[in-house]
Amino acid sequence: MLGWKIPTLEENTNTMRLILFSAVMLLIGCQGPMTKQQNSEPEKAFGIVIHGGAGTILRKNMTPEMDKAYREILQTAVATGHAILAAGGTSTEAVEKTIHVMENSPLFNAGKGAVLNAEGEVELDASFMDGAQLDAGAIAGARTIKNPISAAIRVMNDSPHVMLSGAGADQFAAQQGLAQEEADYFLTERRKKALERVQAEEAAANQTSAALLSSAFLQQQRIGTVGCVALDKMGNLAAGTSTGGMTNKKWNRIGDAPIIGAGTYANNASCGISATGWGEYFIRSVVAHDIAALVAYKGLSIQEAAHEVIHGKVAKLGGDGGVVGLDNQGNVAMEMNTPGMYRAHMDAQGKLTVKIYRDE
Amino acid sequence: MLGWKIPTLEENTNTMRLILFSAVMLLIGCQGPMTKQQNSEPEKAFGIVIHGGAGTILRKNMTPEMDKAYREILQTAVATGHAILAAGGTSTEAVEKTIHVMENSPLFNAGKGAVLNAEGEVELDASFMDGAQLDAGAIAGARTIKNPISAAIRVMNDSPHVMLSGAGADQFAAQQGLAQEEADYFLTERRKKALERVQAEEAAANQTSAALLSSAFLQQQRIGTVGCVALDKMGNLAAGTSTGGMTNKKWNRIGDAPIIGAGTYANNASCGISATGWGEYFIRSVVAHDIAALVAYKGLSIQEAAHEVIHGKVAKLGGDGGVVGLDNQGNVAMEMNTPGMYRAHMDAQGKLTVKIYRDE
Repeated sequence: MLGWKIPTLEENTNTMRLILFSAVMLLIGCQGPMTKQQNSEPEKAFGIVIHGGAGTILRKNMTPEMDKAYREILQTAVATGHAILAAGGTSTEAVEKTIHVMENSPLFNAGKGAVLNAEGEVELDASFMDGAQLDAGAIAGARTIKNPISAAIRVMNDSPHVMLSGAGADQFAAQQGLAQEEADYFLTERRKKALERVQAEEAAANQTSAALLSSAFLQQQRIGTVGCVALDKMGNLAAGTSTGGMTNKKWNRIGDAPIIGAGTYANNASCGISATGWGEYFIRSVVAHDIAALVAYKGLSIQEAAHEVIHGKVAKLGGDGGVVGLDNQGNVAMEMNTPGMYRAHMDAQGKLTVKIYRDE
Repeated sequence: MLGWKIPTLEENTNTMRLILFSAVMLLIGCQGPMTKQQNSEPEKAFGIVIHGGAGTILRKNMTPEMDKAYREILQTAVATGHAILAAGGTSTEAVEKTIHVMENSPLFNAGKGAVLNAEGEVELDASFMDGAQLDAGAIAGARTIKNPISAAIRVMNDSPHVMLSGAGADQFAAQQGLAQEEADYFLTERRKKALERVQAEEAAANQTSAALLSSAFLQQQRIGTVGCVALDKMGNLAAGTSTGGMTNKKWNRIGDAPIIGAGTYANNASCGISATGWGEYFIRSVVAHDIAALVAYKGLSIQEAAHEVIHGKVAKLGGDGGVVGLDNQGNVAMEMNTPGMYRAHMDAQGKLTVKIYRDE
């Protein structure tokens, strides 16, 4: 549409002057000041990346309506945090508010719509880490906290502890004035049916829990953990993860999501990571901290480090799942060894990526 | 005693032959077979190291009787595991049986004699990791399990999960037939008095929990977590940690001891670590895995890595405590940034080290 514009004589002269000046500066080895003159300090990179769980998410099992609904909520969530970061807000606030969007949606296994344990109740886990202070908070096995990620942040800021559990976590959140909900709020028909089906399988087949855990259907029920990593304009990383864990879980099982180092880690010196997947394998592999350690100690890029841990170490043990992460320059990693992972990313320029399956 | 023996002619000839053969082999770059001929495969190094907690342990506060009692039980514990290893037993069994000795002693803050939470109850945490399989188990907040380390190992071997908590952990252990105890078994007069004193301080001073946590007396009440790392003759590392956490803890607080990566980590590729100290800082620093990562990725020795994490990273955040560890060659680390740590080590030759204060 825009044709080639023939330069005017004045423009030609200016171009010649610039070329001559550049050549002279190059010859006298004095590029530093020139670069400085040409570019004012670029605005700090910032960015945000989220996941809504990884697993056997196949296009053939997804209706166009469901596909659309997931992409919309992922976009809404990531845009919520991006707006906070663009306005100069903190990565902590961006992570908290972004995760709220997903916790409040019944589409994900976190907050409202979390999966049910063997007693038909939710047991909610969440953790948060601040990469500037290396401070952290977590809750495990909560039953009444509307937004578990906020409780994790309160544990960090307003208690002397890092991790609270069970009834104690609910009690602390109530004392902090965080929104509480009755069991009915969290329950969805979809999760009730999933629990019934898993328990029927368990009863009929007399399978061991270990065998059951490997069944394709149950694996599906682990999908939906939500997580977010943000880098703000001040250069501070934050990471958070929130989940209902796995369907039919027993004995107050705790997965990787509330474990600092496994499901969540953030360190301004390297990167922030939030994980999702088969929690037992992610705890054993200390996934989030291992990725950060490969970046910090071995000089790997965040993509290389995430690839090595997810496709190498976790897969070798037999575990599946994925991670999202940002390094302290805003470089993004979204890695999974499963057919799909709900995920989205927005960079400082507002460029949006939303994907569900391996390639799109 | 043995004088220099004048070589016989035959020996001289043999020596000359060996020198000539060696020179030829060196020249043709074929040292492998020669080395093999000269040295039979040496017996694999093995070893065991334990801690019974780190903190403000000062000689002036210790009676000669207490000093003796701690040294005796440390020696009994470490010798228990060493005998298992010397007889060709596994590092897993050595860690379990060694920790039993300390859990069953009221001198340590684990099992019998654990500190009391704000309600005057014990809440027991433990974790175990097998460095060969990178498998792990943990329990948090148990109230009736006599030997929490055994429950952690059962979670690893006989459940599909890695971490169980609260009443669920007790229920699982009971189903597994592990020894259960009533509240009275765990209670000791010493811990009741400590709780009364902390709660009186809290009430009188109207201090925040955070300020209270820093008080010297309360810090004393965190001391006594027990842990063990063993390397067996098969070259397999294992690590375990067991604790009652901190006096007057609230809201079902979970510390670092049951967190894989924080309080416990083992990996045959690098080292095994068990930590003790102010759990919140140890979780934030992912202490045990960070030491292993510095060994694996940065090539540090286990002593250098433990020093960097305990004296560098943890201390910088304001945390105190220590670790014990062994690498896959049997090299030992016992590092703390506190005035004392109950600790003991025995190497493959049976050389025993027992220390309480910084130097002895």
